[in-house]
Amino acid sequence: MEIFQKEFYLKARPKGFHLVTNEILQEIPELKKFSSGIANIFIKHTSASLTINENADPDVRQDMKSFTDKMVPENLPYFVHTMEGPDDMPAHIKSSLFGSSIIIPLTNGNLNLGSWQGIYLCEHRNNGGRRKIVVTIIGN
Amino acid sequence: MEIFQKEFYLKARPKGFHLVTNEILQEIPELKKFSSGIANIFIKHTSASLTINENADPDVRQDMKSFTDKMVPENLPYFVHTMEGPDDMPAHIKSSLFGSSIIIPLTNGNLNLGSWQGIYLCEHRNNGGRRKIVVTIIGN
Amino acid sequence: MEIFQKEFYLKARPKGFHLVTNEILQEIPELKKFSSGIANIFIKHTSASLTINENADPDVRQDMKSFTDKMVPENLPYFVHTMEGPDDMPAHIKSSLFGSSIIIPLTNGNLNLGSWQGIYLCEHRNNGGRRKIVVTIIGN
Repeated sequence: MEIFQKEFYLKARPKGFHLVTNEILQEIPELKKFSSGIANIFIKHTSASLTINENADPDVRQDMKSFTDKMVPENLPYFVHTMEGPDDMPAHIKSSLFGSSIIIPLTNGNLNLGSWQGIYLCEHRNNGGRRKIVVTIIGN
Repeated sequence: MEIFQKEFYLKARPKGFHLVTNEILQEIPELKKFSSGIANIFIKHTSASLTINENADPDVRQDMKSFTDKMVPENLPYFVHTMEGPDDMPAHIKSSLFGSSIIIPLTNGNLNLGSWQGIYLCEHRNNGGRRKIVVTIIGN
Repeated sequence: MEIFQKEFYLKARPKGFHLVTNEILQEIPELKKFSSGIANIFIKHTSASLTINENADPDVRQDMKSFTDKMVPENLPYFVHTMEGPDDMPAHIKSSLFGSSIIIPLTNGNLNLGSWQGIYLCEHRNNGGRRKIVVTIIGN
């Protein structure tokens, strides 16, 4: 059993859902040394999330953004935490609903994802900047 | 420290929330060899989820279905990704809100769940078919 | 590679979102022995959750409670599981939306959280009582 850990940035993106599987894979060529295990991919922010979803049609990402913005609207009259802008409190709520980290099984040196699965960066802020990620791989 | 990994199918079920703890446990008798660790249970699809919830009253599963279908309705006028049927885009959204995998601690050869906790397959499609699962156990 | 596991209680809290990072850290001084790894923090209940969110302004926790109570209201006319009180079925739904466990990377003997991240206990019931937690650390 071995462990590998690396911290890096995902480049800045506009608010929305973005397919980042390849950007993450390029950071962790060490994956190839593991025949079996798990990878935890963790985002060190409270206004962005990581999730797994459809890797083919960009319309899915667009519809997820449209839906999420309606599910958690800006400027709700009862919000108290408003001094960081109207997109801030909705970003915190979305961050917890989609979650701060994902776990993916590793098999034969690769992420063992389904054919249609990819990793999404869910950028919940208008100007979130680059996002810091920690990948931890445990396996053999 | 040891690792065990297995890929298998959960049988096809109708749209809704289904208690699958026993169906999963039957696939992994190797669990008994681990005195301490974690199990990651991962679903290789973008229109179904795994979650942990109440294992006793089937009404909980019915109410979760009713609520979820109202929270993410079909045929929203702004959906663009519609060519795979009205249940497809809502299924993608639900998939990320409930999540693609769960982690459960292992203790003395068993899943260390609370008395009322069980594993749900959240089937978000009308005809999702059988669902492919990867279980990865790490422990000693 | 080593594993450490401990089960303990978080003290009872009122319905809402509560910062519990320090209460958890006090239970696991063994964290200091790990230079790299992951920690799984799991809650053994179906009406409370763990999530990661903003650790500074308490207004964030207040707004998350306000929003969550509106997103999953009590007394929905179609709820069937009602015999445990009006806060019970919403608590089950919230439990799965926020999730039963979190994974945090460990680096140099500490939780590798972002500057603004903390661990929330999401207490979804009016009188949930103390909550049982299992922490499992895997690393070296």
